[in-house]
Amino acid sequence: MKACVFDGHTVRVDPAYPDPAGAQGEVRVRVDLAGVCQTDLEILKGYMGFTGVLGHEFVGTALEGRLQGQRVVGGINCACGTCDMCRRGLTTHCHDRTVLGIQGRDGAFAEQLILPEANLVPVPDGVSDRQAVFAEPLAAAVQILRQVAVEPGQETVVLGDGRLGQLVAQVFQARGLAPTVVGMAPVKLAILDRLGVATVHADEAEPSKTADVVVECTGAATGLAMALEFVRPRGTIVLKSTVADTAGLNLAPIVVDEITVIGSRCGPMDAAVGELAAGHIKVDPLITAEFPLDDAVAALEEAAKPDAVKVLIRP
Amino acid sequence: MKACVFDGHTVRVDPAYPDPAGAQGEVRVRVDLAGVCQTDLEILKGYMGFTGVLGHEFVGTALEGRLQGQRVVGGINCACGTCDMCRRGLTTHCHDRTVLGIQGRDGAFAEQLILPEANLVPVPDGVSDRQAVFAEPLAAAVQILRQVAVEPGQETVVLGDGRLGQLVAQVFQARGLAPTVVGMAPVKLAILDRLGVATVHADEAEPSKTADVVVECTGAATGLAMALEFVRPRGTIVLKSTVADTAGLNLAPIVVDEITVIGSRCGPMDAAVGELAAGHIKVDPLITAEFPLDDAVAALEEAAKPDAVKVLIRP
Repeated sequence: MKACVFDGHTVRVDPAYPDPAGAQGEVRVRVDLAGVCQTDLEILKGYMGFTGVLGHEFVGTALEGRLQGQRVVGGINCACGTCDMCRRGLTTHCHDRTVLGIQGRDGAFAEQLILPEANLVPVPDGVSDRQAVFAEPLAAAVQILRQVAVEPGQETVVLGDGRLGQLVAQVFQARGLAPTVVGMAPVKLAILDRLGVATVHADEAEPSKTADVVVECTGAATGLAMALEFVRPRGTIVLKSTVADTAGLNLAPIVVDEITVIGSRCGPMDAAVGELAAGHIKVDPLITAEFPLDDAVAALEEAAKPDAVKVLIRP
Repeated sequence: MKACVFDGHTVRVDPAYPDPAGAQGEVRVRVDLAGVCQTDLEILKGYMGFTGVLGHEFVGTALEGRLQGQRVVGGINCACGTCDMCRRGLTTHCHDRTVLGIQGRDGAFAEQLILPEANLVPVPDGVSDRQAVFAEPLAAAVQILRQVAVEPGQETVVLGDGRLGQLVAQVFQARGLAPTVVGMAPVKLAILDRLGVATVHADEAEPSKTADVVVECTGAATGLAMALEFVRPRGTIVLKSTVADTAGLNLAPIVVDEITVIGSRCGPMDAAVGELAAGHIKVDPLITAEFPLDDAVAALEEAAKPDAVKVLIRP
């Protein structure tokens, strides 16, 4: 099959990559549309040491099993089901997990992929492919409010106007919170402005350590240091960026101001599909380009540009 | 009066430092005994940019006010009482606070100090000066279990066998928890061994990301990176070290493993005095040296040695 493959040094489209073969309980999915995430770009810089087929955001059609013929999205963490994390119900933290296009498992920038059947979530008719492809990052945004109790009236700041920051801001807005997004790209901030989300350019922001909750979606190793400029004493920072780089950081402000920093990764796919079906989240304005799988390398280059938001790849 | 003063470059004992003069609501305290904290040593490296009389751990005698003539310890954060943090009851986070011997207020390595009367806590007769001088760091240890719910049976690790790690381990032990202390100094680990606390030398520790709660008391900028080796996915790290240095740190493990990092600073002085009065915490084995105030510079040098635990200064 055709697939976009990273060998640790170079990324290219292989027209004759081996078809995927699943284990017990796994099913083949035809990929109909895939999305480029910041994590894919970090993998190209060495994050996770991953090699294989890139990509973990997709909507597709199940080719076998219980959901055969149905449109599906899929949870990306594939758990062993028997380790202590799995027994606690923390399957996304399974010690022996593979992760679609990130860790030990070929990903979604391909004509087909394999996932455990239990990971698949059907997509309702009212949700288009171009919407459903956002389910995975939207789940990551939804996850935040399952980890942190945020109440209306609290000051919330989202750092980053990119792929994830856009979704986080909309999820917060949909919950009756009123986040302010701090970003770098006027064109991205304008998308949020049109949705009624408060925005400020990073160059004009005047952080004064007043925010109750800061969500760090900068995609930069310096994001935590920036978040510390915005959060109030005893406030909470939600850390979302997975970055290959190491940043120099003085941790004393975390101690002195007794800040809580919460790492947040993947979220509930079914809840994300529900949000899309309910029409709460406007993802169409976030799509800034679409490429055929043959041009996946160009898609990755496009996604790295400052003004790009969501870049799609269509097999 | 005599006082141990840091001018930003050099620390020395000044035999004729101006006597302290308090504002409205503040009272003079004669310092009977003071303790050296890692933070004092960090201040000498530039932490907080503090200049003035060093020291914030003390027991003394109130020279005026409601508690005149009584033995007292004192909360070190002096709040304005009117800012938004004070109005929320977060007086230790007052925006305009001064902090004894750390920020904008002369400290305890002197014959006298000044604190707001409201900061003083009387010391019961059953608690000796050599015990009471531990009230401030013990309060910092007690604070942890007010920020994090830890249950018996959970795996807890204390990183650091120094001044603070010793107290944290004892507080955990007194609560029916069974911490393991990871340290560097055999002589310090032996103190804990004799108290029935499990210990392991850092060179022999085999971190396997299984601890539910890790308390970082290493006093080193690298402490958080070390804690990440011990904590389990979705576990909690309590960060205690206030360090002048900046450390290079890859934050991705916090995100991937969805770790909660909680900064923790000062704690409730009255509760700490209560712990000392109840005899739960054995502080006498922690005193490794005592110097007269004239030799305060030597006391600071002694406290920086690898095998020193608590070094006292007697005015």
